[in-house]
Amino acid sequence: MLNTEGRIFRFTTFGESHGEGIGVVIDGVPAGLALDLAFIQEELDRRKPGTSRITTQRKESDTFQLLSGHFEGKTTGTPLGFWVPNENARSKDYDHIARAFRPSHADYTFNAKFGFRDYRGGGRSSARETIGRVIAGAVAKLLLSAISSIQINAWVQQIHSIKLDHTPTDFALSTEESMAVRCPDAEVASAMYERIDEARRAGDSVGGIIACQVSGMFPGLGEPVYDKLDARLASAMMGINAVKGVEIGSGFSAVDMFGSEHNDTFVKEGDHIRTLTNYSGGIQGGISNGENVTFRVAFKPTATLMRPVDTLDEAGNPIVLPGKGRHDPCVVPRAVPIVEAMCATVLVDLLLIHRAKTFPSLFASDKGNQNNDTPYFLP
Amino acid sequence: MLNTEGRIFRFTTFGESHGEGIGVVIDGVPAGLALDLAFIQEELDRRKPGTSRITTQRKESDTFQLLSGHFEGKTTGTPLGFWVPNENARSKDYDHIARAFRPSHADYTFNAKFGFRDYRGGGRSSARETIGRVIAGAVAKLLLSAISSIQINAWVQQIHSIKLDHTPTDFALSTEESMAVRCPDAEVASAMYERIDEARRAGDSVGGIIACQVSGMFPGLGEPVYDKLDARLASAMMGINAVKGVEIGSGFSAVDMFGSEHNDTFVKEGDHIRTLTNYSGGIQGGISNGENVTFRVAFKPTATLMRPVDTLDEAGNPIVLPGKGRHDPCVVPRAVPIVEAMCATVLVDLLLIHRAKTFPSLFASDKGNQNNDTPYFLP
Amino acid sequence: MLNTEGRIFRFTTFGESHGEGIGVVIDGVPAGLALDLAFIQEELDRRKPGTSRITTQRKESDTFQLLSGHFEGKTTGTPLGFWVPNENARSKDYDHIARAFRPSHADYTFNAKFGFRDYRGGGRSSARETIGRVIAGAVAKLLLSAISSIQINAWVQQIHSIKLDHTPTDFALSTEESMAVRCPDAEVASAMYERIDEARRAGDSVGGIIACQVSGMFPGLGEPVYDKLDARLASAMMGINAVKGVEIGSGFSAVDMFGSEHNDTFVKEGDHIRTLTNYSGGIQGGISNGENVTFRVAFKPTATLMRPVDTLDEAGNPIVLPGKGRHDPCVVPRAVPIVEAMCATVLVDLLLIHRAKTFPSLFASDKGNQNNDTPYFLP
Amino acid sequence: MLNTEGRIFRFTTFGESHGEGIGVVIDGVPAGLALDLAFIQEELDRRKPGTSRITTQRKESDTFQLLSGHFEGKTTGTPLGFWVPNENARSKDYDHIARAFRPSHADYTFNAKFGFRDYRGGGRSSARETIGRVIAGAVAKLLLSAISSIQINAWVQQIHSIKLDHTPTDFALSTEESMAVRCPDAEVASAMYERIDEARRAGDSVGGIIACQVSGMFPGLGEPVYDKLDARLASAMMGINAVKGVEIGSGFSAVDMFGSEHNDTFVKEGDHIRTLTNYSGGIQGGISNGENVTFRVAFKPTATLMRPVDTLDEAGNPIVLPGKGRHDPCVVPRAVPIVEAMCATVLVDLLLIHRAKTFPSLFASDKGNQNNDTPYFLP
Repeated sequence: MLNTEGRIFRFTTFGESHGEGIGVVIDGVPAGLALDLAFIQEELDRRKPGTSRITTQRKESDTFQLLSGHFEGKTTGTPLGFWVPNENARSKDYDHIARAFRPSHADYTFNAKFGFRDYRGGGRSSARETIGRVIAGAVAKLLLSAISSIQINAWVQQIHSIKLDHTPTDFALSTEESMAVRCPDAEVASAMYERIDEARRAGDSVGGIIACQVSGMFPGLGEPVYDKLDARLASAMMGINAVKGVEIGSGFSAVDMFGSEHNDTFVKEGDHIRTLTNYSGGIQGGISNGENVTFRVAFKPTATLMRPVDTLDEAGNPIVLPGKGRHDPCVVPRAVPIVEAMCATVLVDLLLIHRAKTFPSLFASDKGNQNNDTPYFLP
Repeated sequence: MLNTEGRIFRFTTFGESHGEGIGVVIDGVPAGLALDLAFIQEELDRRKPGTSRITTQRKESDTFQLLSGHFEGKTTGTPLGFWVPNENARSKDYDHIARAFRPSHADYTFNAKFGFRDYRGGGRSSARETIGRVIAGAVAKLLLSAISSIQINAWVQQIHSIKLDHTPTDFALSTEESMAVRCPDAEVASAMYERIDEARRAGDSVGGIIACQVSGMFPGLGEPVYDKLDARLASAMMGINAVKGVEIGSGFSAVDMFGSEHNDTFVKEGDHIRTLTNYSGGIQGGISNGENVTFRVAFKPTATLMRPVDTLDEAGNPIVLPGKGRHDPCVVPRAVPIVEAMCATVLVDLLLIHRAKTFPSLFASDKGNQNNDTPYFLP
Repeated sequence: MLNTEGRIFRFTTFGESHGEGIGVVIDGVPAGLALDLAFIQEELDRRKPGTSRITTQRKESDTFQLLSGHFEGKTTGTPLGFWVPNENARSKDYDHIARAFRPSHADYTFNAKFGFRDYRGGGRSSARETIGRVIAGAVAKLLLSAISSIQINAWVQQIHSIKLDHTPTDFALSTEESMAVRCPDAEVASAMYERIDEARRAGDSVGGIIACQVSGMFPGLGEPVYDKLDARLASAMMGINAVKGVEIGSGFSAVDMFGSEHNDTFVKEGDHIRTLTNYSGGIQGGISNGENVTFRVAFKPTATLMRPVDTLDEAGNPIVLPGKGRHDPCVVPRAVPIVEAMCATVLVDLLLIHRAKTFPSLFASDKGNQNNDTPYFLP
Repeated sequence: MLNTEGRIFRFTTFGESHGEGIGVVIDGVPAGLALDLAFIQEELDRRKPGTSRITTQRKESDTFQLLSGHFEGKTTGTPLGFWVPNENARSKDYDHIARAFRPSHADYTFNAKFGFRDYRGGGRSSARETIGRVIAGAVAKLLLSAISSIQINAWVQQIHSIKLDHTPTDFALSTEESMAVRCPDAEVASAMYERIDEARRAGDSVGGIIACQVSGMFPGLGEPVYDKLDARLASAMMGINAVKGVEIGSGFSAVDMFGSEHNDTFVKEGDHIRTLTNYSGGIQGGISNGENVTFRVAFKPTATLMRPVDTLDEAGNPIVLPGKGRHDPCVVPRAVPIVEAMCATVLVDLLLIHRAKTFPSLFASDKGNQNNDTPYFLP
């Protein structure tokens, strides 16, 4: 809802690219969770501009301040407030766009909607807002670790036309370039890096695809009909800056398969019911089936170019925007922790909603022997 | 939220495939809207099983009863209740799946989540639930007609490997086969029809893609950050049964474009600011820019096959499901009105939210001359 | 929100006094709850016009139809739909008020808000809408019985100036008059009955106070800061037709007490921490403390009088309304099950929210020994 | 919902009494509102501990920092973030209650709910949290001033047994004591002041009643059935710390009136329909009728006493709490701006919801001549 995401695990972000900073308030976090502040900062650091030449030259430490909701190292059940001050805001850099509408940015639409806009660095439409999401996602991950076996891994599957053609089994980023582009295959990462750098040198930009895999799932997560796990993920992903497409499991490739190919056959594996294939992406009828949840997210090329661009000013007069400012020639690598973060918040929220309504004891014939707990929360 | 969709324009569906019927309660509808009941029934009829051999043989008139919220032919501002009784429920047909988990259906996940399930025809997970969505969408369309110039058209762009390679300019369905498959190009429709029928004869099934275009848009619809127009559409589409992917504008094809190709250049057209291309799909920063909103939705092939299928029962024992029951060998054609309906409800909800917070008068220096109205509501 | 109440346990009512009927959709009910339909009907019967002369002469069987959400006698976790058709709607009786604004009714305000109104019997503003609340409350009570020890008892504490001066210990209604006025003290009930009948004979009306006590509570229910148990109860009660005041525990009588008198001293009783007095009404800081939750609700006298009344028509012209129609000279007795029902829905909703966020295991040093269950759900 | 209040105009508070500070994020504020920061600070100053001896000796400047949502002096339509650092937190003062349950405080209930608590100054249950509400209320008041004629005045009607027996016509606080107790009648204020001071000297405390009047209303505000204006006000008031009762209009005094006395007769006054009396408190059927909205709120005496108090520690052992710490012997005067603030946020939220769904043009026969505006927003 507006600037709040979630039903029970709810976070509200505020702040702008060149205002005072970026904040987030996280509500609905259970009491007693050990707040691993170093982990939260690590997650933020993954999102931060890096030191390689393929990311923006804006320097920010992105160090958070914890404002509320904690006591003796644990969450208290009251809202967690976080604040990350802007440090390297150079608003003067944006004077040239104060009256201009940059193509494929949110300048024109914010003006049309709100009557005016904070033009400095895109204001609220800047991807700097995602700092709040990464913090919320870090808290969500801490909670998932504490109460479930769920793990989330995202990586860059494609940059421009350079594709990784398989799902990694090891997500470690062993080389500098795989670190820089967030692709675990060193060879493909190297080619991706080169492609981004080519675009950068040409004053141009490229997009790509992030893939994500959630393992350690249990069956039963997601709510029919309007809080389906896939629908919630789709919303969370499409709401990330520059995203143009989302697919779950087989996604668009399902379209030219026959049903006899696409169906995931059930098999028994020990005590568990599993599927032989996973075209469903771990979700059937909007509810997890215990297989890995898999999805892919398409990012458009960065709208800002480092070359002169023809456009209009607010009065509709043609102008030429110079190619200046600080930006990423490809946002995809830095979006990996954002994809994971949004995924984590969706999973936690649905998990809390699921728990709220799940009373296995209602099925017990012998009330004295009931166990209100689901079997899926970790011992 | 669970079985309710929307913030202000909110609809709640209830009912199951083989229970008493399907209902929907629509709240947040402005008072005074003329309720064109014939139009609502026409929309339902578009969703209904047709007479061609490529749809399910279940016969339902899908005639709605209007239960509340109207007076003298107009909405009263109180909730509209609608009810569509099930007529042709043959629950006996489902005895063979009472203890079976059909592959790629919601049988297993509903059981895992809720402890048991209404197995008759899929119960609540059946696409019959979308009757409620189509009714809500019809009311949303009536409201859009009354207060805006917005129009929504969806059509079948692809069935299996048969593609329509352009965006239609005329959405009329002139032939029986284009009616049957909901593709306005008669020639392509004929090939699509044939492909579906081939699958049907083989006891198999196929999927496809529905494209949708919203015209008559105004700039400013959609809410940063967590009620973006594209995010809301993605959620609404991914929540439709059998959907595996959603893309806005350029979608996944943006991935291998350069920014210099993908940016939509602004141009002035009379008093309006327009864009030369529309890779953005009419949405920038989550907010409409006045261009047509365009998106595409991928549907997997129907999970039910008319051939024997290996699977497991609830105890995990292998069984063979016979290929029987009534189903669509391809759900895509009948999903066209559902895509339009969900799109309409999203647009109306965001429009009401936008209106709630939009006071152009706040910008007026002369308070005596203000006009609280946005310029975008139709005279 | 508008016509929906609750966060997780959410019910949406629809329908009007003289439309087709009254419906309710209840979402968020856990799967597996045995649906005791006879109990639900009994609760409805408590709300129904009685046979005594002090209630409205409108005859309605108020027999519900269950439309969805059940299978083999249990809830399925999907929405429960209920429908109660109107049987004795005599809309002609209301022709005389079609253009009139009845004093202290919602006629004028509905017109002002919505532009027009369904004037027949008050339309949506009629207390007939509370049928939906009583059904939702009955389902909530069934759930409370199944998963907790919570019990809710409301009774009539005062009618006009006739007061019951103590809290009953036995809520049985042993005499016809105590049945009729819902006051367990036979002597006081008799005086109350007489007072109502006097008002009726004079074509006048009276109000009163309903008291409510929730026993079997556990400490911890209610959410700081904006879903406090007392705030939620206050909202639920003030939203009942004709209510003008709500007080919790000591209520307005706290005003002229000193803190040294009003504080509830803690004492140990076995393993439990209790309080010596209960001026807090079982709620401290918005959260239950395990003592009985107690509150009182003030009802104004019925606005409809059986005598000629001076008022205005829609054009603002003075008119005289004749004293006719069917109504209760005192709504208080029939509101007792409504107070209980609204109380039950609040408690269940907060209980589910509480459960969603409560993981005692987070505090366990030994993760292998944790128990995710709260101790307060019944074995 | 938890720590967020409102549907469209939504504010989320965070922070604790002795943590880093108190914050609030306000979402849903229309763009273009001139942010009168001095006014916001003035409102905060009204809530702040004063200089008189009848308020707490905790010294706080309560100076806010504006963190987001503004540009060139106006709101941008994005969330406003505010932060008020704690300055005079002396947490050591609370060591004596670290393991104690203070009677009629939230110590025990927070522990029971969350497993532990931030005991310093009551943590999140402290009335210091209301700083966030007063800021949200100040923004709401600015918006009401800009788009409506609505004005809100609250005052102290009663302290312990000292009552103001009429509704003031002038709300100016002319004397030091009327300033201190927030009662506009100098003589009554003097007696109230004395009563509070007596209690203070005795180490005791007193409660009281705050009355509130909203003038400049228009008919039509409030949503049947579960967002009634009176229900929303009741929830907002009952959620304020120490409140035990709320009544609208006649309130509990309606109970022993006859309907013939209580009904508010309609009269025509120029073009407006008014009522002769206002027992309804300006609300009928949950919707404003244009008369002044009036309500009264009962506060219990402060739970903290400046004398030794018998109570229990966390282990259930009896202890004696010394009478120390900093507190108000009567919270009522400082709660006046809080009552006004909560009232303002409710009115703005319902006003935005109302606007969202109100399209008078739907009733126009001539579509070319419609005016989508309601007549009630100020020119």
